Amino acid sequence: MKIVKIGGNIVDNADLLQEFLTAFSKIEEDKILIHGGGKIATEYSEKLGIKVEMLKGRRITSKESLDVALMTYAGLVNKKIVASLQSLNCNSLGLSGADGNVIIAERRIVKDVDYGYVGDIEKVNSQFIKTLIDLGLSPIFCALTHDGNGQMLNTNADSIASSIATAMSEHCDVELIYIFEKPGVLSKINDSNSVIQNMDYKSYQNLKADGSIHDGMLPKLDNCFNSLNNGVAKVVISNIDYFKDNSKVHTQINL
Amino acid sequence: MKIVKIGGNIVDNADLLQEFLTAFSKIEEDKILIHGGGKIATEYSEKLGIKVEMLKGRRITSKESLDVALMTYAGLVNKKIVASLQSLNCNSLGLSGADGNVIIAERRIVKDVDYGYVGDIEKVNSQFIKTLIDLGLSPIFCALTHDGNGQMLNTNADSIASSIATAMSEHCDVELIYIFEKPGVLSKINDSNSVIQNMDYKSYQNLKADGSIHDGMLPKLDNCFNSLNNGVAKVVISNIDYFKDNSKVHTQINL
Repeated sequence: MKIVKIGGNIVDNADLLQEFLTAFSKIEEDKILIHGGGKIATEYSEKLGIKVEMLKGRRITSKESLDVALMTYAGLVNKKIVASLQSLNCNSLGLSGADGNVIIAERRIVKDVDYGYVGDIEKVNSQFIKTLIDLGLSPIFCALTHDGNGQMLNTNADSIASSIATAMSEHCDVELIYIFEKPGVLSKINDSNSVIQNMDYKSYQNLKADGSIHDGMLPKLDNCFNSLNNGVAKVVISNIDYFKDNSKVHTQINL
Repeated sequence: MKIVKIGGNIVDNADLLQEFLTAFSKIEEDKILIHGGGKIATEYSEKLGIKVEMLKGRRITSKESLDVALMTYAGLVNKKIVASLQSLNCNSLGLSGADGNVIIAERRIVKDVDYGYVGDIEKVNSQFIKTLIDLGLSPIFCALTHDGNGQMLNTNADSIASSIATAMSEHCDVELIYIFEKPGVLSKINDSNSVIQNMDYKSYQNLKADGSIHDGMLPKLDNCFNSLNNGVAKVVISNIDYFKDNSKVHTQINL
């Protein structure tokens, strides 16, 4: 099974999204897609006059921001992806964590910072996902979960991908693929020729220690290692070219 | 099986929606819910400065209006309903017509009026709906379909309810319930005590001829008779009180 997470650079670009979905539809293995909302949520927040609240450098999901996330992630982006995949003969089904009770999360309350309606994943119902896949469906997840008590929650798409990959590893061999804007993890941040083709935990620690790896990559890489530690067979970070030719440059994460 | 369509008066009122969902969650038979977006789409259109285009007295769904429908129907309203039902121990799954390729529609092009991104239903995949129900899920449909070629389409929620009810009648006895703001179809439009308890096609034609029935009721009633003509076992029009006590006033439609 291939589990693919796409980043904002693809979601925000209609042509690139169509190119990606065409490649995704051709994957012959069972497949799952996880997407965030890209800049669309921010754009609509601005149009609607909803302030992006920041506290200690972290974004806070207010009630209004959560509504925008529901609208853009679960509505606009998810349904356009599903409709497009249907036209590519890929029978897909859009899901938030509330649908089929598939991902339960707990609202994150931290002593010094209340992040608002943000959820940390507690449980992925992998049996339900397997049932959908056995019906011939490709589940398309947006970056939303629920708490089981009627509250939707905003949840990081990388974390959702990692948690789903881990949960599905109970049923089959899983390859988890993070697609972002660069061909892989770079040792020199501005040099796209500096892709680290293989990264193990020791080299990750070294690159982290010497500051070669950028802040934004750290939680993504932590998710990768967590996934491998919890049974995921293969983890790759690359860009859309990964699907064009498997031999091209990408970063494979190893324990 | 009970198939319930709720109108804008419920979707727009958080307390009434919660009351309805509590009643819906207690229905012991297999169940399906269809909802529109109420005034929320109009409110967001206004906030976003999107003009509601009218042509020859009919609303036109522009590209921008369709985006708002995707956001509010499939995102905001659908996911809040699903999360709320999960908290009431009703395992629900939100769907647009694109999800699982469940409702295919054709974009309506009329010679003199182009209604924009509006779809007329061509096919309901009742086998897929049955499969979801057999898994213990209650499908929650929003008023959106797709054309199979990548285009989402706005589709009247009453028509979706009628088409789903007809399609499901191949599998089981279906009761189709339209919940709106009045206790039933009224013979005197401003007198809520004038509920027509039983309406057959002949009395409908008479009430239509003498102008007793309001314009807005006509397509709804046409959907009701179409459903009965196509195998639906029972059709009822009422308000939320219908679920409180089955013996209360309501309109039952008969052939």
